[in-house]
Amino acid sequence: MENNNQNCSEIATRIYDLDTEVYRCVGSSLGRTFTGDRDACIEDITRMLITNPRVYECRSQIALIGNMARTIKNKDDRRRLMTEYNEILNMIAEIPESFGSVDILNENMAALNTSNLRQKFSKDDHLIICIGRTHGSAGSDIGFALADKLKISYYDAEIFQQVLERMDMEQENIEDSNDYHNHAHEFDSKNPNKKPHGLVKFFKNFSKYHGLPVQDAIFFNQSDLICDMAKNEDFIVMGRCADVILTNKRIPHISIFITASFEQRVRRMMNVYHLDYKHAARMLRKLDHQHGHYYNFYTGRKWGNAVNYDLCINSASYGIDESVELIERMINQYPNR
Amino acid sequence: MENNNQNCSEIATRIYDLDTEVYRCVGSSLGRTFTGDRDACIEDITRMLITNPRVYECRSQIALIGNMARTIKNKDDRRRLMTEYNEILNMIAEIPESFGSVDILNENMAALNTSNLRQKFSKDDHLIICIGRTHGSAGSDIGFALADKLKISYYDAEIFQQVLERMDMEQENIEDSNDYHNHAHEFDSKNPNKKPHGLVKFFKNFSKYHGLPVQDAIFFNQSDLICDMAKNEDFIVMGRCADVILTNKRIPHISIFITASFEQRVRRMMNVYHLDYKHAARMLRKLDHQHGHYYNFYTGRKWGNAVNYDLCINSASYGIDESVELIERMINQYPNR
Repeated sequence: MENNNQNCSEIATRIYDLDTEVYRCVGSSLGRTFTGDRDACIEDITRMLITNPRVYECRSQIALIGNMARTIKNKDDRRRLMTEYNEILNMIAEIPESFGSVDILNENMAALNTSNLRQKFSKDDHLIICIGRTHGSAGSDIGFALADKLKISYYDAEIFQQVLERMDMEQENIEDSNDYHNHAHEFDSKNPNKKPHGLVKFFKNFSKYHGLPVQDAIFFNQSDLICDMAKNEDFIVMGRCADVILTNKRIPHISIFITASFEQRVRRMMNVYHLDYKHAARMLRKLDHQHGHYYNFYTGRKWGNAVNYDLCINSASYGIDESVELIERMINQYPNR
Repeated sequence: MENNNQNCSEIATRIYDLDTEVYRCVGSSLGRTFTGDRDACIEDITRMLITNPRVYECRSQIALIGNMARTIKNKDDRRRLMTEYNEILNMIAEIPESFGSVDILNENMAALNTSNLRQKFSKDDHLIICIGRTHGSAGSDIGFALADKLKISYYDAEIFQQVLERMDMEQENIEDSNDYHNHAHEFDSKNPNKKPHGLVKFFKNFSKYHGLPVQDAIFFNQSDLICDMAKNEDFIVMGRCADVILTNKRIPHISIFITASFEQRVRRMMNVYHLDYKHAARMLRKLDHQHGHYYNFYTGRKWGNAVNYDLCINSASYGIDESVELIERMINQYPNR
């Protein structure tokens, strides 16, 4: 502790002297940061440095000295004083409980986060980007273009439905051929390809989905599919609460939310669907409501709340192409890519 | 229009044939995307292509073919079919009102957005990064470290207050020396440095701030200062509604919001301020409330709503150092930097 105080007093002295020097070189009419008796100032700075969280106050004052030092016209003076400034910052960083020493990192989240590239991502993991988006924000266009640029697969609700239907059909074909003789009476014997219908189909679905409502069954089938895919390939997945599903299964990924202001999205819906303002706005409100309900129902989280994603992008600020580039640039330090 | 239909029919044929080829090469048990009579399928795809917004449905199906093509084991086959896939996508992009053709870009916002680097940023503009943040999210640590890394100035509330106080003092010194004789009766003649106080000071402030309440005056003085600075230097500014102020003045900048979940921020506040959970949570709720009120009062916008920023970062996903690197990577295509 005594040692720490001694150290802080040294740093304080250097801060005070830097301030004096910067003031001498910059000649600003705004004057010095620390005015008053030298010893009193140094004592005061020392107190700030050792009294967390007052160290933050001290940081602002040092930053102000740094801001001024950057404006020094003489190149040699500027370099000399910026070097001293950086050394002082490094010394402060060594003080226990200095600013920046208490990180905000959530180890659990970070371990799952694909953009924490070097440290956390093993080469067995696949690049999985989950994109949530509001309707009309061009989020799916951005996702599609990004997949194309990264040369990885793109999955959305339509594709999942297709894949699941095909898997289902394949399954049914196997079951049908196995069970054909047992259940021959269920089928029109003149047309063996005819599918069971009505109550029969209902009970068939019921047992297939383990008694779950069909919507839930689809959700769980999609979830399983996403986790299976994550073992085998790199991909972008639109919506499907994929971020939450992967987090729960502890599968690394990056989660991005794409949105834009309501007005901007309405304008885009008007263009895409050839609607007037009133109808586009009504459609959007309805879609937003359904979307939020779906996400909340299956995840218990609030849809679109920034704290639920790694990153939120305002697509109206960037447009489709810039947004794609922005995400690309962010992840382009992915090793071996 | 006839021409367009002809074109779409050609694309549809190539899509159908690609599907057939991919299915042949990949040998997947999941089968083909387009099953059924060739002519009927092509007609259906053509209809999808010319019926915006059904073109989005078509895109999902093409994406599915592309996803499968990527899994083809034979390298030559894969390259050949991916080339065809890309050519088809390019052809679709040429169709009027194709997907992605209605951008979400807001020209006004984009023109002000520093991350739209190549097109919109002139070399006379300075790099200005506005960072808003929730308390406890380590946003100010991220901003400070970023400024240090980019070697640009860092401004926060404390620094603004210092700068304004000094400018004020300078101003008062000038005024005092000018007005000394006129207002000598206001001063203690034995102590000419003594400042006016009480009612006198109130009226002095009243006229100085053009009759505004002091808090508003500070806000407007800070706003003026931010706009002045923007003409002269690159900098990072924390809070101060700087994003809205710069947007209103049509000064290019990038606006970032940094946040983390409430629980995560409480945990950090507990560490930084040595508080128990209850006190840290209460402190945070109070600070969030004040902060939101301030932002809303001066901007009419909702604080922390993702659509009000270019980008939102969840600092709990990245931690301080990763967040700094993430932002750095995003803006590192800034020309001549």
